[in-house]
Amino acid sequence: MAEINRRIVLAARPEGAPKDSDFRMEGAAVPDPGPGEVLSRTIHLSLDPYMRGRLNDAKSYADPQPLDEVMIGGAVSQVVASNNPDFKEGEFVFSYSGWQDYALSDGSDLKKVDPALAPISTALGVLGMPGMTAYTGLMNIGQPKAGETLVVAAASGAVGAIVGQIARIKGCRVVGVAGGKEKCDYVVEELGFDACLNHRDPDLSEQLAAACPDGVDIYWENVGGAVFQAVLPHFNDFARMPVCGLIAHYNATELPPGPNQIPVLMRSVLTKRLRIQGFIVFDYAAQEAEFLDHVSGWIRSGKVKYREDFVDGLENTVHAFQGLLEGRNFGKLVVRVSPDPTG
Amino acid sequence: MAEINRRIVLAARPEGAPKDSDFRMEGAAVPDPGPGEVLSRTIHLSLDPYMRGRLNDAKSYADPQPLDEVMIGGAVSQVVASNNPDFKEGEFVFSYSGWQDYALSDGSDLKKVDPALAPISTALGVLGMPGMTAYTGLMNIGQPKAGETLVVAAASGAVGAIVGQIARIKGCRVVGVAGGKEKCDYVVEELGFDACLNHRDPDLSEQLAAACPDGVDIYWENVGGAVFQAVLPHFNDFARMPVCGLIAHYNATELPPGPNQIPVLMRSVLTKRLRIQGFIVFDYAAQEAEFLDHVSGWIRSGKVKYREDFVDGLENTVHAFQGLLEGRNFGKLVVRVSPDPTG
Repeated sequence: MAEINRRIVLAARPEGAPKDSDFRMEGAAVPDPGPGEVLSRTIHLSLDPYMRGRLNDAKSYADPQPLDEVMIGGAVSQVVASNNPDFKEGEFVFSYSGWQDYALSDGSDLKKVDPALAPISTALGVLGMPGMTAYTGLMNIGQPKAGETLVVAAASGAVGAIVGQIARIKGCRVVGVAGGKEKCDYVVEELGFDACLNHRDPDLSEQLAAACPDGVDIYWENVGGAVFQAVLPHFNDFARMPVCGLIAHYNATELPPGPNQIPVLMRSVLTKRLRIQGFIVFDYAAQEAEFLDHVSGWIRSGKVKYREDFVDGLENTVHAFQGLLEGRNFGKLVVRVSPDPTG
Repeated sequence: MAEINRRIVLAARPEGAPKDSDFRMEGAAVPDPGPGEVLSRTIHLSLDPYMRGRLNDAKSYADPQPLDEVMIGGAVSQVVASNNPDFKEGEFVFSYSGWQDYALSDGSDLKKVDPALAPISTALGVLGMPGMTAYTGLMNIGQPKAGETLVVAAASGAVGAIVGQIARIKGCRVVGVAGGKEKCDYVVEELGFDACLNHRDPDLSEQLAAACPDGVDIYWENVGGAVFQAVLPHFNDFARMPVCGLIAHYNATELPPGPNQIPVLMRSVLTKRLRIQGFIVFDYAAQEAEFLDHVSGWIRSGKVKYREDFVDGLENTVHAFQGLLEGRNFGKLVVRVSPDPTG
């Protein structure tokens, strides 16, 4: 093949917000698959907040993104050539093949995506990692009960929107926090949340108190920072806080000024008997079938809606990722790297 | 009766460490029991760290100690006069009758103490609230598994000593943290902990790393402050932290200087999937029989030892309480208000 495979590599570890110069686009020949190998063309590329953490050279649950190698990330691709009997040309697959037009694989990391089940892009969102994050974290740690109140930040985002809708299905009062009126209107009018507050409002904590007249039983933490501080005073006894992400901290280059608020937090943990627990979706891999069964059923019955924010072109990936970390996306952020032949 | 009932009341809400002048001793006539009432004489009075929190006028799981009323606290007493058919003169009872020589009751708040089972003072310690705190918090939140490592601060104290010994029974490596060589020697030589570190050593975090070569799976939090900060870097994935108390914070009048370390804590919660959960013993009231059965059995078989630190005389209660908050006690702190006729 004479076509070029464009690949975006990490050129430098970002200090704070990732800059254009922290990445580099390279061109290489599209490889030919060797014996047992599969060549696939990227259609949809997933951009997710967790990716910021991997750009640092720090111990975490995932290894750091290596410098000068293709940025890792989930993608839905189509097989264009295969020497592997398990994968046929034209089939759709999910893998962590990353920010490039084409990828080679021995097949071991590929998971087939059935276009008859749902739009293939949903394998990156509501029926993929973000949806499963929402489902498993909420069921295992949040443990919603009818009549309780759940607060979720980034409420229009890929995870938050699903968390809130599942909590509604479970009978909770659901209050979202999002950035701006447009997102808040969507969360209330389209997703059916009971209320949604703008995290940019200076009186967020007072607004939360008014929106949660019976206090907060579950706070879904995917933001940190000011939203967490606003929720903390409103916890009920025995409240649960699944810690899913901390996007407000990811670009920070230094800690917030003092005083050190840990004693305030710990006093609440003690006197209110809070449960604060971190998790990542891979911890609940055994629940994938249950998740797919429930959430795809709720989508079919109209109880769960989802929104995708498409950006066209691999060359716009870095800019879209920068925007994600600033909350500029509206719904699950997906880069359309090549046309989706299913629609 | 012509005898005087001495009572210690809260005279002022302490700012920081409680001062002598925050309390006042009063004298009153020993009352006569009315119809259905029981008069009891205090023998053993319990002093516990949680009492410091009740001196503040702040919302907590317990109501604040009222000003100018008898300081509330657990005590083992002997019935000296009774118009209640359920209680006979000479019987021993536990109640929250507080810092006074005599107390009246209608019987509804009295729990009989059987002197044949164990020394009656243990109803304030290993077989009372501190022991049950250790047992229920460890079993329900700590969830020790054989081969794991547990770290417990205030390791020679009423709760910490029991936590560590139960964790040893469950097959854990147990590392204590205590104040000074004498306490550490006791914890290792008498209680059988694998190691004990002095929290006054400046290199505590390094010593912890050496004493916990496989990391920390459970940290029993009853101290906060510097010990917590020393443990935090050594948590393993999926570590649990039952939050039982925060004695290092109780006398603090202001927060520690910045920066605000909450983002550091939350990053650990997220990437290591920590579970931080507060509790109080009353949350597990249904497990009292199970607790008594297990722990009294372990005492009889010599697997659990306990140490009591007796102070003589109600008039020394305030001083003993001040010392407790500074870690000057060595074992479960008990004020002997009147002679124990059982021994």
